[in-house]
Amino acid sequence: MYDEVTMKLNADPLILGALREDITSEDVTTNAVMRKACPGEVELICKEDGIICGLSVFERVFTLIDEKTEVSYLVKDGDTVCAGQLLAKVRGDIRALLSGERTALNYLQRMSGIATYTHSVAKLLDGTGIRLLDTRKTTPNNRIFEKYAVRVGGGHNHRFNLTDGVLLKDNHIGAAGGVREAIRMAKEYAPFVRKIEVETESLAMVEQAVEAGADIIMLDNMEPDVMAQAAKLIDGRAEIEISGNVTKENIERIKDLGVDYISSGALTHSAPILDISLKNLHTVS
Amino acid sequence: MYDEVTMKLNADPLILGALREDITSEDVTTNAVMRKACPGEVELICKEDGIICGLSVFERVFTLIDEKTEVSYLVKDGDTVCAGQLLAKVRGDIRALLSGERTALNYLQRMSGIATYTHSVAKLLDGTGIRLLDTRKTTPNNRIFEKYAVRVGGGHNHRFNLTDGVLLKDNHIGAAGGVREAIRMAKEYAPFVRKIEVETESLAMVEQAVEAGADIIMLDNMEPDVMAQAAKLIDGRAEIEISGNVTKENIERIKDLGVDYISSGALTHSAPILDISLKNLHTVS
Amino acid sequence: MYDEVTMKLNADPLILGALREDITSEDVTTNAVMRKACPGEVELICKEDGIICGLSVFERVFTLIDEKTEVSYLVKDGDTVCAGQLLAKVRGDIRALLSGERTALNYLQRMSGIATYTHSVAKLLDGTGIRLLDTRKTTPNNRIFEKYAVRVGGGHNHRFNLTDGVLLKDNHIGAAGGVREAIRMAKEYAPFVRKIEVETESLAMVEQAVEAGADIIMLDNMEPDVMAQAAKLIDGRAEIEISGNVTKENIERIKDLGVDYISSGALTHSAPILDISLKNLHTVS
Amino acid sequence: MYDEVTMKLNADPLILGALREDITSEDVTTNAVMRKACPGEVELICKEDGIICGLSVFERVFTLIDEKTEVSYLVKDGDTVCAGQLLAKVRGDIRALLSGERTALNYLQRMSGIATYTHSVAKLLDGTGIRLLDTRKTTPNNRIFEKYAVRVGGGHNHRFNLTDGVLLKDNHIGAAGGVREAIRMAKEYAPFVRKIEVETESLAMVEQAVEAGADIIMLDNMEPDVMAQAAKLIDGRAEIEISGNVTKENIERIKDLGVDYISSGALTHSAPILDISLKNLHTVS
Amino acid sequence: MYDEVTMKLNADPLILGALREDITSEDVTTNAVMRKACPGEVELICKEDGIICGLSVFERVFTLIDEKTEVSYLVKDGDTVCAGQLLAKVRGDIRALLSGERTALNYLQRMSGIATYTHSVAKLLDGTGIRLLDTRKTTPNNRIFEKYAVRVGGGHNHRFNLTDGVLLKDNHIGAAGGVREAIRMAKEYAPFVRKIEVETESLAMVEQAVEAGADIIMLDNMEPDVMAQAAKLIDGRAEIEISGNVTKENIERIKDLGVDYISSGALTHSAPILDISLKNLHTVS
Amino acid sequence: MYDEVTMKLNADPLILGALREDITSEDVTTNAVMRKACPGEVELICKEDGIICGLSVFERVFTLIDEKTEVSYLVKDGDTVCAGQLLAKVRGDIRALLSGERTALNYLQRMSGIATYTHSVAKLLDGTGIRLLDTRKTTPNNRIFEKYAVRVGGGHNHRFNLTDGVLLKDNHIGAAGGVREAIRMAKEYAPFVRKIEVETESLAMVEQAVEAGADIIMLDNMEPDVMAQAAKLIDGRAEIEISGNVTKENIERIKDLGVDYISSGALTHSAPILDISLKNLHTVS
Repeated sequence: MYDEVTMKLNADPLILGALREDITSEDVTTNAVMRKACPGEVELICKEDGIICGLSVFERVFTLIDEKTEVSYLVKDGDTVCAGQLLAKVRGDIRALLSGERTALNYLQRMSGIATYTHSVAKLLDGTGIRLLDTRKTTPNNRIFEKYAVRVGGGHNHRFNLTDGVLLKDNHIGAAGGVREAIRMAKEYAPFVRKIEVETESLAMVEQAVEAGADIIMLDNMEPDVMAQAAKLIDGRAEIEISGNVTKENIERIKDLGVDYISSGALTHSAPILDISLKNLHTVS
Repeated sequence: MYDEVTMKLNADPLILGALREDITSEDVTTNAVMRKACPGEVELICKEDGIICGLSVFERVFTLIDEKTEVSYLVKDGDTVCAGQLLAKVRGDIRALLSGERTALNYLQRMSGIATYTHSVAKLLDGTGIRLLDTRKTTPNNRIFEKYAVRVGGGHNHRFNLTDGVLLKDNHIGAAGGVREAIRMAKEYAPFVRKIEVETESLAMVEQAVEAGADIIMLDNMEPDVMAQAAKLIDGRAEIEISGNVTKENIERIKDLGVDYISSGALTHSAPILDISLKNLHTVS
Repeated sequence: MYDEVTMKLNADPLILGALREDITSEDVTTNAVMRKACPGEVELICKEDGIICGLSVFERVFTLIDEKTEVSYLVKDGDTVCAGQLLAKVRGDIRALLSGERTALNYLQRMSGIATYTHSVAKLLDGTGIRLLDTRKTTPNNRIFEKYAVRVGGGHNHRFNLTDGVLLKDNHIGAAGGVREAIRMAKEYAPFVRKIEVETESLAMVEQAVEAGADIIMLDNMEPDVMAQAAKLIDGRAEIEISGNVTKENIERIKDLGVDYISSGALTHSAPILDISLKNLHTVS
Repeated sequence: MYDEVTMKLNADPLILGALREDITSEDVTTNAVMRKACPGEVELICKEDGIICGLSVFERVFTLIDEKTEVSYLVKDGDTVCAGQLLAKVRGDIRALLSGERTALNYLQRMSGIATYTHSVAKLLDGTGIRLLDTRKTTPNNRIFEKYAVRVGGGHNHRFNLTDGVLLKDNHIGAAGGVREAIRMAKEYAPFVRKIEVETESLAMVEQAVEAGADIIMLDNMEPDVMAQAAKLIDGRAEIEISGNVTKENIERIKDLGVDYISSGALTHSAPILDISLKNLHTVS
Repeated sequence: MYDEVTMKLNADPLILGALREDITSEDVTTNAVMRKACPGEVELICKEDGIICGLSVFERVFTLIDEKTEVSYLVKDGDTVCAGQLLAKVRGDIRALLSGERTALNYLQRMSGIATYTHSVAKLLDGTGIRLLDTRKTTPNNRIFEKYAVRVGGGHNHRFNLTDGVLLKDNHIGAAGGVREAIRMAKEYAPFVRKIEVETESLAMVEQAVEAGADIIMLDNMEPDVMAQAAKLIDGRAEIEISGNVTKENIERIKDLGVDYISSGALTHSAPILDISLKNLHTVS
Repeated sequence: MYDEVTMKLNADPLILGALREDITSEDVTTNAVMRKACPGEVELICKEDGIICGLSVFERVFTLIDEKTEVSYLVKDGDTVCAGQLLAKVRGDIRALLSGERTALNYLQRMSGIATYTHSVAKLLDGTGIRLLDTRKTTPNNRIFEKYAVRVGGGHNHRFNLTDGVLLKDNHIGAAGGVREAIRMAKEYAPFVRKIEVETESLAMVEQAVEAGADIIMLDNMEPDVMAQAAKLIDGRAEIEISGNVTKENIERIKDLGVDYISSGALTHSAPILDISLKNLHTVS
């Protein structure tokens, strides 16, 4: 679950942005029929099997619009949930429950969708020692939530953004004048706490990267047998990441190659949501 | 394509947020290997068949970080594109091209994914006179982009948010004390330019809604034959919207019921991206 | 009174902006004479007869700078108040009471001024069934407060802004190529929950608007007898709004023409304030 | 006219706020009928006699949404204008002209209204040497514009806000334990560039204020003969400001008392707008 | 100590900015080892002799990220502290204590450093009646904190910024066409509560400034004997400020010249920090 | 020099904040004497010997308030400059030159001060192969500028903030239950591109850190001979950083111990400014 610090500093402004996107002056429908505060309770119910994720974001949507709203949970982030299961009860002013419902569910469904999809892929790697990584192919202004969902689903995070990780791609290498030069320049320029990762497309590039002292070598769109050769060549002198349209379907053939990481953009850019809804709203005394 | 006003007032702050999410102090990799400005060009190439959408947002990412970047297009929003097709060329400081690449593609791929999926569903309704609608089940802080993509894909927009449309759901009706009372309260309270839409779950509710003067009646999760009865009962006195997990698979059986609109959350919450990339970066003189 | 959701999401940022406009680093005078917190109470007293409006905004000014401030009310928004009347007591740290006083009163006086003026105009329409509407001629960055004040004064709100309502004026009609074409384009483009309103200047335009299916027809600066003819021509097929410098003086002659709405920019752009002040500050133990 | 620095740093954020208040996602009407850019021109025409004020703010509204918009002026801030007079021509993309119209006019009308009303009051003081001052009774988030309008109308500005001026009122004096003590504390605490102003309600207080070295003494709600005595007592040792519901009607009887300043909240809180409109929009080639 | 109003309106946004500068998505180290909340306490200990300043800002850093954090103080702003002294205890979730530590100390050390240095200079002026002033040579986005620290250290504040004080320098005088004209224009233009200060470089300029009614005359980089002549010439008709690289070393020779103020940029731009740290973190039950 | 991307996304908001801190409504002095734009030029002159740093930030201050301002440089960031040297000429509207002067110099002086001080320390390490590192002890809301200045002065950057680097200190180790456990938890939790650094206070801790696979080991406040033993023990299996009040005075005795990095908070928290000023403003035609 999100620590309070991250929530206050980094999540709150985004959640408020989302709420203001949905309520530009007022919730006309709710205000039309409920002219004053009225305490109520509503149930959070899952409609599909999956991994639940984002409960504290879901809750924060409500407390940001009415700090007196309270959520009591029957599950926690990362739990396996199934269709029809009661996940939590939300209690507060019915107007806040109605006005926050859609935004809260939009976050929870999307985060749970990513956790569920990630979990299904990560399971395929069980026992192989290979870690599943996300990418920067996240939805704009949602990276903090989506990378968390990947972790909850059993994946691991690659660099958060362009500032906190070095990844030398073909264009960087071209600009530097070669793999060795690119690595040298990165070691010279980047804060010394950064690991240097290089994207390689051939065994020759792999060899240069190892010699120049790359910390991580990405094998980009290589055939399985070339990957195997690359892993042998690297021989533990750098970590190895496999990239390039990794899906549930093709993950099988690359899991025994001796690589350390497999990264997949699909975890965040193409996971469908997990269907969850708020039901049985009723007044409480 | 987005008008300049919408871009400046409403899209720019979001695009800047997305860029700052990806670059919190600097693009370390690019700055390591390219210490000064260097003019270059890169090609935007489609890797899957689909409908392209979001080109002006894609462009804006680059011009926000370097106003001298220029994009020349070979296609426009809404065009059908196919795998391998060259869509545009982007010319500018290579550092800006590299630093903006991921954010620009994250927008373009997602918007094109929604347009593509929407188009595939809308096609099924061709010739029926029924319009396909989106919902508020959009990604937080991306509604403006996603609702535009639905239109580009051939869909139509439902209300933008809780402020600019009235939709009385079961909880509102319960709070008001009935369908008639809810409609009366909404007509009294809401700005007079708002149409009043009511969600109904039975023919009895439909009847009350018509009599109370609802502008739009949503038939929620009704069986096809009940929908047909409802349409007959309404008899042109209100517009009719069908909701509830409409997918490509089940759309067939409801398209001849005499309804006006079918709304689908999946258009925005579960469309996979369209794969597009920037390739062949090279310096230009 | 404002619901908590609207206050938090939409009013708070504006109220904070107003406070920061008045206190750019500190309230020098207050801090000079009161070096530490000291509990006190002050009375809110009306100095003119009118309609009170904006009490929750008034209160929010104080709680935003010191959440422990408490207001106890003797009236509520919409009440008729008279010169000399005690409206409320505000209790809290005297420094917060002094620092927030001007901003709190600036809101309360302006909102009450609009409610009072609106009420005086709306009264003239009593028994006619005609509703009094506001316009978009509001003070920049104060629309949310001014449109609320119109409602409290007995008026009704027209569209909130350019996004949530369609109003085809002469320039739009000219660009589209005629009334019919403009309405057709709006029905095609705008979200389907928008009503289509057209501004007309002649009976010919009225006729076209009715035939093209306009939801609302605005009769702009027509003579009373022409308005009467227009109303007859429309015959219930669209709602009718009268516009154009409606004032207390000339409202009499148009109230029997069979129209539905009269809109007036003066409600928000030219209402004088209602004089209200904070008096009798004293320490409390 | 506003200098560029003030406009960029202080006015722009407010103008953008006003535009976003009016366009939360897009201008639906304009976009419905004008799908692409089209150059046009519109005339700014005065509909009442008055003093024009706010032309650069008016212009900035348009250039903020489309930097290519151009305004050619026939008048400048402070000019006397009359009903029917052509003030300026605005040329640019018709969509920007339509979308910015209301916000631009809302600023221009309000600022011109304040300048016009201020001018009418200031004229009454011609030849007396007394300066007319504004107060902090401005519209929230509009102070920068309203105080400028007062100057354009021939008035002068009192302190801008609670940070940049010291004004010891009865409550401050009470907290300090007397006039002398309050002045001493303010001189000790406030930045030394601040003048110390004291609000007095009796000749005794005036005497103490002079002795304690107040720079400015405000005579609050005193009868004319008491004011005269106060002025005599002060005898040039401090500047004198008269306050308290000064209006056109009662200004006559206080202008010969030998005071330096008369302040009036009505200049900003109750001036009606000056009616101005954009007319004759037409395309240009 | 900061009043609550200043903290909420003016300090909070800056402190939040500083926290977000240090935590762009999460505190990885702390979250890695502490997965959930755990109550703890840590001691604030001084490591050098000096003047403590900024305790409420220090505290605010913690309460902004976790409102339940509590600080109990053994000293208050302005107290003389010495190496090894226990200043306060901070109690709360250990994660918040660790995540806020650096930002809280960065503020406290800098503010205490300025207070300490200011105090050491101000002491040299004891008994002379001359006040020590700061300048606008503050660290960007830290002026509010640094000017406060100057006061705590026994100095006084000059104008806060370009808006709230008039200081005519050589370039302004040149643009106006002379000292007299510059003063006349400033008196005409500036709000009447502003004192007019003029920077002079010769006795001739001093003479003109006095005659034109300057409130404050700055003697810029004059030799001590010229300053003495200037003070004699001014003869109490204006306040006198000495400027220009005043340091502890040279302050001696100018303190008997009969001037009122000595301003020094070094107070804020070159004071070293006071070393303070958080020690002995331990869990509490 | 700053790349355009970093400037636009990360520096601009801070520079605007600094400008708004200095100009809350307008530059009263400048506007009083210069009522309209007037082209001019001013010279940037160094008043002390040092390393110049921050020229693009200096320039950006002016172009943000008037985009037509132009700077022509005679030096570039990192150059050694000496007292009296002409560094650049700034040309533009004199009002912008005057209004931006202080903020521009505040940045330039501080950044140059840090670069100058860093350079003087880094020189002491010449030929040793040891790199000089900064810390997170930067001025709030100025880290981006100060860390850049360290690089320009010949130092290197440690992690930017709590998000992009792992540094396990005593409290983290305590919470985890030991060095080994802390490293294991960090490797499990942190994005895999993060190097793991551990702060050690004894040889026993050093040993555990090496065995657990720490990437960097910080020797905190150890005596030189203990450091030497630690370096021997580590024997190239991790990088070594020395911390703890490193100053010009004591750096000598630790430079031959075989460590890789020496970090110093003083670089950013206690460097005095480099004195630089704008002189000889004159109009140009």
